[in-house]
Amino acid sequence: MSEKIGFIGLGIMGGGMARNLLKAGFELTVWNRSPERIAPLVVAGAHPADSPAGVAAQSDIIVICVSDTPDVEAVTLGENGIIHGAEAGALVIDCSTISPTATRHIAAQLRENGIAMLDAPISGGSEGAAQGTLSIMVGGDAADFTRAEAVFAAMGQTVTHVGEQGAGQTVKLVNQILVVGTMLAVSEGLAFARAGGLDLERTLAAVSGGAAGSWMLSNRAPQCIRDDWAPGFTIDLQQKDLRLVLEAADEMGVPLLGTGMIFQMYRTLQAGGLGAEGNHALVKAIYRLMGDA
Amino acid sequence: MSEKIGFIGLGIMGGGMARNLLKAGFELTVWNRSPERIAPLVVAGAHPADSPAGVAAQSDIIVICVSDTPDVEAVTLGENGIIHGAEAGALVIDCSTISPTATRHIAAQLRENGIAMLDAPISGGSEGAAQGTLSIMVGGDAADFTRAEAVFAAMGQTVTHVGEQGAGQTVKLVNQILVVGTMLAVSEGLAFARAGGLDLERTLAAVSGGAAGSWMLSNRAPQCIRDDWAPGFTIDLQQKDLRLVLEAADEMGVPLLGTGMIFQMYRTLQAGGLGAEGNHALVKAIYRLMGDA
Amino acid sequence: MSEKIGFIGLGIMGGGMARNLLKAGFELTVWNRSPERIAPLVVAGAHPADSPAGVAAQSDIIVICVSDTPDVEAVTLGENGIIHGAEAGALVIDCSTISPTATRHIAAQLRENGIAMLDAPISGGSEGAAQGTLSIMVGGDAADFTRAEAVFAAMGQTVTHVGEQGAGQTVKLVNQILVVGTMLAVSEGLAFARAGGLDLERTLAAVSGGAAGSWMLSNRAPQCIRDDWAPGFTIDLQQKDLRLVLEAADEMGVPLLGTGMIFQMYRTLQAGGLGAEGNHALVKAIYRLMGDA
Amino acid sequence: MSEKIGFIGLGIMGGGMARNLLKAGFELTVWNRSPERIAPLVVAGAHPADSPAGVAAQSDIIVICVSDTPDVEAVTLGENGIIHGAEAGALVIDCSTISPTATRHIAAQLRENGIAMLDAPISGGSEGAAQGTLSIMVGGDAADFTRAEAVFAAMGQTVTHVGEQGAGQTVKLVNQILVVGTMLAVSEGLAFARAGGLDLERTLAAVSGGAAGSWMLSNRAPQCIRDDWAPGFTIDLQQKDLRLVLEAADEMGVPLLGTGMIFQMYRTLQAGGLGAEGNHALVKAIYRLMGDA
Repeated sequence: MSEKIGFIGLGIMGGGMARNLLKAGFELTVWNRSPERIAPLVVAGAHPADSPAGVAAQSDIIVICVSDTPDVEAVTLGENGIIHGAEAGALVIDCSTISPTATRHIAAQLRENGIAMLDAPISGGSEGAAQGTLSIMVGGDAADFTRAEAVFAAMGQTVTHVGEQGAGQTVKLVNQILVVGTMLAVSEGLAFARAGGLDLERTLAAVSGGAAGSWMLSNRAPQCIRDDWAPGFTIDLQQKDLRLVLEAADEMGVPLLGTGMIFQMYRTLQAGGLGAEGNHALVKAIYRLMGDA
Repeated sequence: MSEKIGFIGLGIMGGGMARNLLKAGFELTVWNRSPERIAPLVVAGAHPADSPAGVAAQSDIIVICVSDTPDVEAVTLGENGIIHGAEAGALVIDCSTISPTATRHIAAQLRENGIAMLDAPISGGSEGAAQGTLSIMVGGDAADFTRAEAVFAAMGQTVTHVGEQGAGQTVKLVNQILVVGTMLAVSEGLAFARAGGLDLERTLAAVSGGAAGSWMLSNRAPQCIRDDWAPGFTIDLQQKDLRLVLEAADEMGVPLLGTGMIFQMYRTLQAGGLGAEGNHALVKAIYRLMGDA
Repeated sequence: MSEKIGFIGLGIMGGGMARNLLKAGFELTVWNRSPERIAPLVVAGAHPADSPAGVAAQSDIIVICVSDTPDVEAVTLGENGIIHGAEAGALVIDCSTISPTATRHIAAQLRENGIAMLDAPISGGSEGAAQGTLSIMVGGDAADFTRAEAVFAAMGQTVTHVGEQGAGQTVKLVNQILVVGTMLAVSEGLAFARAGGLDLERTLAAVSGGAAGSWMLSNRAPQCIRDDWAPGFTIDLQQKDLRLVLEAADEMGVPLLGTGMIFQMYRTLQAGGLGAEGNHALVKAIYRLMGDA
Repeated sequence: MSEKIGFIGLGIMGGGMARNLLKAGFELTVWNRSPERIAPLVVAGAHPADSPAGVAAQSDIIVICVSDTPDVEAVTLGENGIIHGAEAGALVIDCSTISPTATRHIAAQLRENGIAMLDAPISGGSEGAAQGTLSIMVGGDAADFTRAEAVFAAMGQTVTHVGEQGAGQTVKLVNQILVVGTMLAVSEGLAFARAGGLDLERTLAAVSGGAAGSWMLSNRAPQCIRDDWAPGFTIDLQQKDLRLVLEAADEMGVPLLGTGMIFQMYRTLQAGGLGAEGNHALVKAIYRLMGDA
């Protein structure tokens, strides 16, 4: 008999993930801060709860997918949080992207109440959430990871156990460093190519296949060329994650000269009202410096 | 009847390219500044010449593969240069990586003597040169490109006509911006992951397949992890190309904040005696800043 | 009859400032988190209190000089904070360097209880605190500034009313941007001069008097030259203030490319155990990059 | 009997310097590439010459004040250059700002012909040139420096013998690193202050006197505040000097992360048509990034 699952946070990512758990046949209890997002899941077969504690009281494994560190703290440790509803032996899986340090603090407090926790941040966008093709980077005990495998399998495609508590979050931040750094490379390449009067599509065709190649070059550079700034991942969310990166780097004493500069460049785009555009709009910071955007 | 080919510059790249032209059945006349590199090609079937002008006098199409702008100027326009041996109607193909502006000046002077020119810088390393799998980015007239197709096919795999005179060089510089920018992203990601105590191989496995992925991450990050600094492309050569990038960016008014910073980081590694290591040793600049390299 | 003064925070800065208030003839009640710092002030004539609320209950004007935003929040709004002891009409003067935004929040809550507040961060080091020669940058209502003039006159030499609530803190952060930016200029100049084999003292003599001149060049460069890293202001404190700068810049959407880079450079020095050295040790980050420190 | 002086390069700086030599009673022979600048000096008492060689033939000491390295090479070593007119024992004083390496090469060639050389770059602007209050940083042999003292005294106020051949140029480049680095600090401070809604004049008053103080803050920040972009030193000239700085840093292996970034920022202003504005317009690069300039 499979374990009963709870799901907290039914936003653009969590909504799709919860549906995939239902499709996989799990009995599911759900909660969301804005109650209007609960009904569609209930229609699809989930049980509603009136608080995170209520979800926890009905579940063996509770998945969280909320926005930021304070939100995770609230739904785990706060008033009516999981800690007040879960029985000893429950397992929390936090799919939010938050601070690795905060993750370890929350996990330690849950553990004192006999509740285990895996940090399991995701990447792959809303399509990945809807289609169950997310990448999931998991930190925590190996036994907990094994216990959760069927749950992960319902939500993601590439699920990697990367280390101890907090390691999932740290890997996710590594992922974000790579994403924005590659995007800066692509942006400078595009700005140079444009100023050099090149045919941008032929340029991409010539360089994408070799040592210069990247997912960003193949997927986002064409968007930049056709002036399509629709987000896969918004600048506002990117900045939230870069704050986590820079805070963690600050704690660990790692100098991130490039990432620090990119943060400043995105910041100017936010200030200019572009926070809802895709993170590939980074190139606009360069165009703007050139007096041309 | 196929055209007679000349080849000037039989170094680590040019030597392999010339051999592939012989294998493809072209009649080939060769010259190299250091004469000891001529004999092996003669053994393989090439005719020796005693100067670039001598090569040009025996050839319809002359391929150049030398180090830097002054070298190309010398073998084309200098004393005993191609311009003094080639007949009207000859075609020069310059596979060196040099300044786009210098390319246009040289091409203009050759054109006054009835000699056409394509700029055709290459990427793919010494293996690509030996195996005929280079990427070749070609600038110049479409008719000249068509005329040279069989020659390019003997030397490379991905041959792209990217635009007018100089466009090949400009695309090559775009390629180098992408290469080093992606390498900085990888370097910052690795430094962060290492400081965070992650298992680096599991981290790569978790992030390489998605939006963070790049050729550099898949090919050079594993080298960094196993402390293997053998060059695909040396820091010294990388810096030579970055000087071309920054000079061209200066001429065109493009601000390359990231690339400019990377140039400084590589410079410190050269000063520390690491110029012959691979360009992925960029990560050592970060480790050194951290007092740990 | 002059107003009765309270003083909270008798550290390296606050201790000297409190003594100067006693010397100026003010009746003074004091409190410090570590109680051993209270006795010397009592010997000098101050009344002890057992909490910030206790200080406030005995004072018309309460001066605060503590470390960071949470400390100010604790002594003003926390349990046994000023808000629980002060009468309506009291005036709080916060000489700590904290977030301008937090300053406005604290001031708003005090105001609801009829307590006025000036933010009045200081610069000038421990000598300035001891000798009463501090620079004080004051934000808040003009009437409150006027009321406090005698208090400021006892502690500082250059006292400037720079604007509304929070403006004092913002000006202090401007001061810190200028301090570290000028220090970076000096550091790069020194590194270049040293690599160029110059006599560093003659170099300073030649350039200090003109457009290149600065307080940092005249006062800290000579320290760097004679390998004297004794702090006027430590790297650890500098980083605390730079965090405030970068957070405020983030809130306001101001891109600080230079300051952001300097933060990263100092961070590597802290990680290397140099946090207690003076902020002019920034030059060591460059020497370290050069493999030479 | 005092030595006969020659002067080559009668531009905005050289014109004033030549006049001051006349005022000091020196017999003076002059030449300028654009001949219309010769006449006014002849009216003032100078002898005209028809080439640098012609100047040299009439002079014991020849002062040069031209734009860039190729200009100095032309007037010293080129056709009709000083080397073809000067007698053994002549002394060349080069007041241009050029590459330290090129300086040493030129000096070596002159020395083979028995001609001594001092590099003596200047700072202080056109006012300093007109009023004889320049700072002069002199490299070369001590005996040559002593021989030239009366000449320097006529042109400058702070004359420092800073070391061997090329040291004058190296110190001048240190000066330029300090100038632009301090200007970046001032620019970031101003941008932050403006975004924070501060009264900029009161802010300057509050911070200029202490550790944040600099010539740039006292002299150029007020210009920025009143939107006065009239040059003391133009961005175009600043960039010419920064190219020399970055080339020398490249040769010496010194990482100048800040200066390299500033170069990129000025470059965008040039591209935007602001090259003739003063170097304090650097702040506009930040305003532009903020979408506001």
